[in-house]
Amino acid sequence: MGAMGERIKVFIEGKEIEVEKGTPLGEVLKRAGIRDALGGKLGDEILDLQTPVREGGELKPVFKGDPESLEILRHSLAHIMAQALKEIYGTRKVHLGVGPTTEEGFYYDVEVEGHRITEEDLPKIEEKMREIIRRDYPILRREISREEAIKLFEDLKEKYKIEIINRIPQDEVISVYEQGDFVDLCKGPHLPSTGQAGAFKLMSVSGAYWMGRADQPQLTRIYGIAFWEEEELKERLRLHEEAKRRDHRRLGRELEFFLIDEEVGPGLVIWLPRGAVYRRVLEDYWKEEHIKRGYQLVYTPHVGRSKLWERSGHTEYYKENMFPEMEMEGEGYYVKPMNCPFHIAIYKSRVRSYRELPMKIAELGTVYRYEMSGVLHGLMRVRGFTQDDAHIICTPDQVEGVIKETLEFAVSMLKDFGFNEFKVYLSTRPEHAIGTNEQWERSQSALREAIEDLGLEYEIDEGGGAFYGPKIDVKIRDALGRLWQCSTIQFDFNLPERFDMTYVGPDNKKHRPYMIHRAILGSIERFTGVLLEHYGGLLPLWLSPTQVRVLPIAERHVSYAKKVFSELERAGFRVEMDEREERLGAKIREAELMKIPYLAIVGDREVETETVSVRGKREGNLGSMRVEELIEFLRGKVERKE
Amino acid sequence: MGAMGERIKVFIEGKEIEVEKGTPLGEVLKRAGIRDALGGKLGDEILDLQTPVREGGELKPVFKGDPESLEILRHSLAHIMAQALKEIYGTRKVHLGVGPTTEEGFYYDVEVEGHRITEEDLPKIEEKMREIIRRDYPILRREISREEAIKLFEDLKEKYKIEIINRIPQDEVISVYEQGDFVDLCKGPHLPSTGQAGAFKLMSVSGAYWMGRADQPQLTRIYGIAFWEEEELKERLRLHEEAKRRDHRRLGRELEFFLIDEEVGPGLVIWLPRGAVYRRVLEDYWKEEHIKRGYQLVYTPHVGRSKLWERSGHTEYYKENMFPEMEMEGEGYYVKPMNCPFHIAIYKSRVRSYRELPMKIAELGTVYRYEMSGVLHGLMRVRGFTQDDAHIICTPDQVEGVIKETLEFAVSMLKDFGFNEFKVYLSTRPEHAIGTNEQWERSQSALREAIEDLGLEYEIDEGGGAFYGPKIDVKIRDALGRLWQCSTIQFDFNLPERFDMTYVGPDNKKHRPYMIHRAILGSIERFTGVLLEHYGGLLPLWLSPTQVRVLPIAERHVSYAKKVFSELERAGFRVEMDEREERLGAKIREAELMKIPYLAIVGDREVETETVSVRGKREGNLGSMRVEELIEFLRGKVERKE
Repeated sequence: MGAMGERIKVFIEGKEIEVEKGTPLGEVLKRAGIRDALGGKLGDEILDLQTPVREGGELKPVFKGDPESLEILRHSLAHIMAQALKEIYGTRKVHLGVGPTTEEGFYYDVEVEGHRITEEDLPKIEEKMREIIRRDYPILRREISREEAIKLFEDLKEKYKIEIINRIPQDEVISVYEQGDFVDLCKGPHLPSTGQAGAFKLMSVSGAYWMGRADQPQLTRIYGIAFWEEEELKERLRLHEEAKRRDHRRLGRELEFFLIDEEVGPGLVIWLPRGAVYRRVLEDYWKEEHIKRGYQLVYTPHVGRSKLWERSGHTEYYKENMFPEMEMEGEGYYVKPMNCPFHIAIYKSRVRSYRELPMKIAELGTVYRYEMSGVLHGLMRVRGFTQDDAHIICTPDQVEGVIKETLEFAVSMLKDFGFNEFKVYLSTRPEHAIGTNEQWERSQSALREAIEDLGLEYEIDEGGGAFYGPKIDVKIRDALGRLWQCSTIQFDFNLPERFDMTYVGPDNKKHRPYMIHRAILGSIERFTGVLLEHYGGLLPLWLSPTQVRVLPIAERHVSYAKKVFSELERAGFRVEMDEREERLGAKIREAELMKIPYLAIVGDREVETETVSVRGKREGNLGSMRVEELIEFLRGKVERKE
Repeated sequence: MGAMGERIKVFIEGKEIEVEKGTPLGEVLKRAGIRDALGGKLGDEILDLQTPVREGGELKPVFKGDPESLEILRHSLAHIMAQALKEIYGTRKVHLGVGPTTEEGFYYDVEVEGHRITEEDLPKIEEKMREIIRRDYPILRREISREEAIKLFEDLKEKYKIEIINRIPQDEVISVYEQGDFVDLCKGPHLPSTGQAGAFKLMSVSGAYWMGRADQPQLTRIYGIAFWEEEELKERLRLHEEAKRRDHRRLGRELEFFLIDEEVGPGLVIWLPRGAVYRRVLEDYWKEEHIKRGYQLVYTPHVGRSKLWERSGHTEYYKENMFPEMEMEGEGYYVKPMNCPFHIAIYKSRVRSYRELPMKIAELGTVYRYEMSGVLHGLMRVRGFTQDDAHIICTPDQVEGVIKETLEFAVSMLKDFGFNEFKVYLSTRPEHAIGTNEQWERSQSALREAIEDLGLEYEIDEGGGAFYGPKIDVKIRDALGRLWQCSTIQFDFNLPERFDMTYVGPDNKKHRPYMIHRAILGSIERFTGVLLEHYGGLLPLWLSPTQVRVLPIAERHVSYAKKVFSELERAGFRVEMDEREERLGAKIREAELMKIPYLAIVGDREVETETVSVRGKREGNLGSMRVEELIEFLRGKVERKE
């Protein structure tokens, strides 16, 4: 912390200001002539007005409405919620865990003695929070000694806070924030007073293990969202409603896409016939696109010897994500968490010449990874999933071309599924890394060039790469504006060494190749979840399990309807026929619920004129067409992947 | 055994003969006027001339050359081999295990103190056997008491024989056979003397656990084949040579179809790119044929909770064939040995109406089963394989139609792969069985009718069915005349009960459906092994990973060759181009080794006349063709699945 009176320099909006180390941020801003800020950003940290500035550097003021200001708002709302809980359930009955901010709000993990908080309690808690906001308590920061802190929180029976204090390094400042008679251990940042809090809503209650560990007590996580303006909150709530309506778990059940069955096992996905039709179409498309681009498809087993996973380093670095070991005849085996060692075995099945490179080995490989049952979520987070995996093995000279082709491929495939907004993240060399400078530089610049050549929006995560190589992550933006991680292009300088992979160069000597792991969709399961939510279940025609359903209005139209059915089937479409003796309205309603994209309705007029009356789920009534016209129309849609 | 003097009746070639119980078979035959037989068949048992007849019944004389006579020949050759071993390595140094006959010969499992028998020892052993045959020892049967037997074999240090004696039930006769100074515990049947032995050859030496159990000592299995005539033996040896040449393990390596890697795990198959192309074609064909016939394809996980396998009964009845259990969060999981419980979960994912039946759920499901590493064999016996599995769930009324359709489907698919000879086995109700009489009768007669309707050759294995239902097995005959088990159609009266499967009938009440397991190819791995051996690696064109290879003779032909390549590729063929600067002869030789079915050779004349010179691996030189002609020609082959 340095001697008292030490001076530091901060740069605010171009001005250089020298202050005594420890001057509160509000004071520093005032000297720069800034009065209406809520806080400031120094390096990666957001400070509030009361927080002492202890380091020099670029200081960016944070005003209400700036993205960073939400951090301050939400932090304070977590405290206001904690205070409300204590007022309702008793100061010493509520034991607080941690209460961080999230992408759209905040939560607090709490334990309430003698009461199990449920979603029914939320309105009452919200009411109390509004009351605390109306009281407009000043929020005051105080730095206290470790002893004082322990005494304070012991007195408050805040056992989890004591644990936190004990984990704070000795040389760190301990601060508390107070509002009214509520006090919380906290680094900040916070609003100046509770009255300045914006619009919020408490959303849900769930269980959360203390420190995220299953051997620790389970606390209750109360989750809220918060924005400055009521309008923003409303818009977010609308998106939440929309997301709920599009929840892939609900759609998956209603559209009979998949099943996750308690008896079969949590996180283990069974694809029902309709979902399996979609998956087959997707896989056929995926394979075709890969074959076109010279990938070599393979099949590898789902189990491998422990020795293999030792050699690859998985048992050393990845074991907690693996299913448990199985022993047979004194040898250990693991269900595979990744496909890499198998693809490497294929590469190594004979001597490889530079003439064979780049070799692109691809597989729809189903892998199994351990996830705590508590975090499993529909298709989004599972224990078994199929990666659209590939390993590209190439010479150093080929790196640039390979990366460019791969990223282009990824983007073009994601576009085929209807995604047009991408955000790319480039993660570079971390402090501790293996591989030569040349490897890192060549790889990183190949990645960067590829992104720039394609004109994609990107961010660099400096030092955020794995120890074994840099990577690109591609996220797609869905119809609700949410970002989903899909493609990854990851260099690996580690496995080629571990498995002693080589190729014979034009010099007739052995060389070490570059190896790149890549996935485009990521996981078929997760991608399907995203797709279902993006389209609200109404998939593009080419992916739809049923493309057309033929609806004869009455018994007397069935024979003509069958003719229509056969013609569509012969033309290669996935057709169904609903010849039950139900009212047309009921048949249409049911087809709409199943998100059948097109209905071909057949009544007297259609039989007479040899047409069908076409109804699109998206377009509504499309009028009458001859069957050849309908076929033409549908073919166009499928070709354009609409 | 009844009182002395008891009389029994035997029927020989239509004659009824009454003899005293215990009369040697030779004596009985003599009374029927039959003098030149080697033995007789009474019930399922083959007796030699010395064996006492203790039961009445139909007695069929066995003459030299009858299929049953080989049993007698081979039995005696096993003894002759054992005697040879004892003469070479010392009477009390050779400990005999069991020495049964096989489909084409015999083996003996032995332990030789102080010597490891290898294939190099075989000529010496054969020489000694021939010597024993020349000595023409009479082979004498003697029935002795248990005590006498134990004393005899203890004296001979035949520890394994003692174990066998101790397992013989108290009320059974113990017999030994003697030839020269050799004696062996044996039920027979045997030749009258060693001099009557036919043609034989010792083939191989391998390890075999005593009683087939890995916790028991490992003995040496010496395996021989034997026939009456030298000509037959030679023909069989030729087939063996041919089989070796076609060994799918060798072909799989040479043609780069698959890899079984010690480091990855025994019995775990990695499909290399070329093999994977073939497998994809096969799977696409399989799926298409199933969709055509109204099967619903699904995907299910490779892991399931122990609870599921308990409910299905697998952990109770099938555990020794399963991979070991894995435990996560206090719950057990198994890698799946079968797909059934998952398909049942799909059936049960909602209430089913009789209108939806028959429901045919199909999957290319990869299952894992424990096999001792010692019995693993290429693709034929593995630990992980993909079943072409389906479960058909139907109403009682639908049973006949479903079975007929299924068997027809199986036969038509096997024919598409070029198999035209089938042998069907129908296994019926065993003594202990579940299910009603009605279920068994309906199912068995449906199976029988289906076989008869298709005019297939079949055998009935009375009482050979599983306890839960009757089945059909279909074997195919390959180019070497060997039979391979492929399709199975198996009723299951057990799982519908265990999983409480129901459908709602027209009466609006719940009913129990019939369920049928079926596979057509059996296992893709094993079927591929059979296919590779059947075709000696030269697969039919439609299945061949590469269908045509274009060979430009010199640099100046490359640009035209590329045009040829593109036209073939555009026409949908799997084409390769070999544009290396090698001599044409070398390129052709290499393509032949890779069993490329067609070569399109391009030289000056071809460039000039815009043709290609076509060479078929099967047909030889096919002369020159325009590319369109070649395409036409190949299309025909593919369509006819030649």
